[in-house]
Amino acid sequence: VKLPDPVTVQEICALINARHSGRGNELVLGINEIHKVSPGDLTFVDFEKYYQRALDSPAGFIIINKVQTPPENKVLIFSEEPFRDYNRLVRHFFPKMEMHNRPDSADIHPTARIYEGVFIGNDVCIGKDTVIYPNVTIYDHTIIGERVVIHSGSVIGADAFYFKRFEKPEPRYEKLESCGRVIIEDDVEIGAACTIDSGVSGDTVIGKGTKIDNQVHVGHGTVIGKRCLIAAQVGIAGKVTIGDEVILWGQVGISKDLVIGDWAEVYAQSGVAKSLPGGQAYFGSPAKPALAKMKELAMMQYMPDWWEWMKKREWGNGDAP
Amino acid sequence: VKLPDPVTVQEICALINARHSGRGNELVLGINEIHKVSPGDLTFVDFEKYYQRALDSPAGFIIINKVQTPPENKVLIFSEEPFRDYNRLVRHFFPKMEMHNRPDSADIHPTARIYEGVFIGNDVCIGKDTVIYPNVTIYDHTIIGERVVIHSGSVIGADAFYFKRFEKPEPRYEKLESCGRVIIEDDVEIGAACTIDSGVSGDTVIGKGTKIDNQVHVGHGTVIGKRCLIAAQVGIAGKVTIGDEVILWGQVGISKDLVIGDWAEVYAQSGVAKSLPGGQAYFGSPAKPALAKMKELAMMQYMPDWWEWMKKREWGNGDAP
Amino acid sequence: VKLPDPVTVQEICALINARHSGRGNELVLGINEIHKVSPGDLTFVDFEKYYQRALDSPAGFIIINKVQTPPENKVLIFSEEPFRDYNRLVRHFFPKMEMHNRPDSADIHPTARIYEGVFIGNDVCIGKDTVIYPNVTIYDHTIIGERVVIHSGSVIGADAFYFKRFEKPEPRYEKLESCGRVIIEDDVEIGAACTIDSGVSGDTVIGKGTKIDNQVHVGHGTVIGKRCLIAAQVGIAGKVTIGDEVILWGQVGISKDLVIGDWAEVYAQSGVAKSLPGGQAYFGSPAKPALAKMKELAMMQYMPDWWEWMKKREWGNGDAP
Repeated sequence: VKLPDPVTVQEICALINARHSGRGNELVLGINEIHKVSPGDLTFVDFEKYYQRALDSPAGFIIINKVQTPPENKVLIFSEEPFRDYNRLVRHFFPKMEMHNRPDSADIHPTARIYEGVFIGNDVCIGKDTVIYPNVTIYDHTIIGERVVIHSGSVIGADAFYFKRFEKPEPRYEKLESCGRVIIEDDVEIGAACTIDSGVSGDTVIGKGTKIDNQVHVGHGTVIGKRCLIAAQVGIAGKVTIGDEVILWGQVGISKDLVIGDWAEVYAQSGVAKSLPGGQAYFGSPAKPALAKMKELAMMQYMPDWWEWMKKREWGNGDAP
Repeated sequence: VKLPDPVTVQEICALINARHSGRGNELVLGINEIHKVSPGDLTFVDFEKYYQRALDSPAGFIIINKVQTPPENKVLIFSEEPFRDYNRLVRHFFPKMEMHNRPDSADIHPTARIYEGVFIGNDVCIGKDTVIYPNVTIYDHTIIGERVVIHSGSVIGADAFYFKRFEKPEPRYEKLESCGRVIIEDDVEIGAACTIDSGVSGDTVIGKGTKIDNQVHVGHGTVIGKRCLIAAQVGIAGKVTIGDEVILWGQVGISKDLVIGDWAEVYAQSGVAKSLPGGQAYFGSPAKPALAKMKELAMMQYMPDWWEWMKKREWGNGDAP
Repeated sequence: VKLPDPVTVQEICALINARHSGRGNELVLGINEIHKVSPGDLTFVDFEKYYQRALDSPAGFIIINKVQTPPENKVLIFSEEPFRDYNRLVRHFFPKMEMHNRPDSADIHPTARIYEGVFIGNDVCIGKDTVIYPNVTIYDHTIIGERVVIHSGSVIGADAFYFKRFEKPEPRYEKLESCGRVIIEDDVEIGAACTIDSGVSGDTVIGKGTKIDNQVHVGHGTVIGKRCLIAAQVGIAGKVTIGDEVILWGQVGISKDLVIGDWAEVYAQSGVAKSLPGGQAYFGSPAKPALAKMKELAMMQYMPDWWEWMKKREWGNGDAP
């Protein structure tokens, strides 16, 4: 995400009490996780095995826990605890506000219909002719377009499930602070009891005209294209990219960081563990092209016969258990 | 569903500005999707490949986008956009009311206990000794029997997930308006964070004495029999018919339009893709009789040994990759 | 669970109008299901095939529907309907209170932040710096530690899904009354739209530092250890014991009564049907060690080739269909 205003390296270092390489008057424009950085961005790295990836990334500013000479065009900020200091900066520039219901900062179009029991956080924006049914919760900074429908019990913009393990001084998980938003484009319908998490440093996006059934989960920073159909109880992890016109049938699960191409169709209960090219149907857990998977499944019924057949041909005598 | 009062074909045509075959004074009694029609009903068809099915159906009145001679005992109503005009009629005869919490039209028995944060829509009926826990949402027209328990966060009667694709003038999905209800019979218990959708033109029914665990999804128009047990996170699509005394274990999924017989039992995580005769146990995704499936699964462990065995017998030399 | 105060056998029998063996002045200290009893506890048994198990259990007091000589150190309480009388005693000693929102009996630390739309039942205890987001429901007796976060729409402490079948006088399910609690230890985070049921006669526990994603279901009396990670849409049945440092990926299901060892990891969509030793990764439905399962799955792609190969070698000629 972009910072509200550009900030000098010097100011950043003063906030976290750190030293830096190079000139202190360069301007930091944004703050992002390592996989999404652009040249004006600040990011962090704290494991030796990720150092090189960070140093090779486009990020202009890196909080790092090893003093070293910076590559050209990069400023290093030296910190003993890069994760903590990154979180501290997120909290500084994107302070969690005390959430109030329907605060003045919420921008709700007069034609939008918002029912009783709906909670609307700070800086939420709700467009024309949108309907939000009872007992929906909308966290801070969520942007909702026109003619959107959100059914009861859904929760939009809760924190990313993004924890980092520490072993010292005692084992524990610490949460990476979220400063991304949820953006729901025009003509989207979201069923009852869905959960759509906010991004950590990017936005979670539901594309124009996409329709989502009940009890669907969409993880942090996931971007869903236009006119997708997502059936009930689908779970999509964080930072997934789904194209346009994709259909996911009931109870499908998609692992994090994957890319699903336009016009892909994934049959019910499939588990997607790798990125999928578009324009095809997939099935199985792990998912593969549907026809191949169905052929495999059809074969399974012969296995007991195969077993008999091979046994007669001395399978199991010396060859196998 | 039945119309509130019978209406002449002439009146129907006036509402949607259409012409009709035959006599205009015949009476339309109800309005229904094609798979549920009876002789007094009006339905619609807009794809050429479904014309014959519609013309052969029991429906007495068909909105159709091709002028032609009607079969005997049928009235055709000619429209360029049958889906739009059908939706328009649904909206006219079953107007979505502005939902208000606990309106005068809600008929709540004085012994029913309704907690704070529960939203109750128009024309809802709640029977004797029923308990509805905090933060439940009950949409318009829902009928709830006696001694029913509904736990927190559940959503009863949200819209069917039923969209129709249009390519022109621009690609999009349009929602078929729901005018069905949810009916929850006596002695049903529904867990927390469940979603039970209303029917499109029929009713969604949960039969007497059925017990439903948490986070269960029941689609539009699905009818569940008496004394079923449905474990957590089960998902049942739309227009499924489930008999009496059926047991569905955790995370089972059932595809739309299927029939599950009395006393069937479906093991955890199974995916039901075809109708299942009653009185048996099923397992797998796709589900098959449990014993056969378990035999298949037991065989899978031998596959690496088979591979070795066949390789020794020159499998893979010319026969296969 | 312990009774609020010890009670004599005589007093118990007066409440349910029953006779007992032995001395009437022995003290009943607690009331528990058969699998959790200790010597001061009262339990019940009503099926002949479970008599011996009950008589051999540590329970000091057994409600039973067959008059017989008690084993040493046991008091038998004779009842025609042990289940009903047990439920009656639970209701007597642990009466369901009329739930009120944020009653005086709720003990909420002044630094805890509780948002609008949150319902808090009787005797709930909420620790320092805990945050509970809008539209969460917390049933009676729940204990929540310090620095806990619970996201919107979650339901803590709803009734166990625990029903007993009766055939007479008419077939039906009756609910075993819950008198257990939910205990959420320090530093736990619970996502949006989760459901964590209360125990029937023990407690449901989420261990210190465990992090739970959205739409997770935890059944009655399940005990989860410290620093576990539980991804979205996982379903854990009742009375499961999960060790420390366990990772469950998305949409995993775990059957009731199982034990999962420390440091076990279960991959996405797996279905756990047997207890799992710790320190290993598991996959599949039913779940087995991940490497073995993956080898099996890799083999499946060869099955169509095997079929061809065996057919050439006269599989199917007399050997098989």
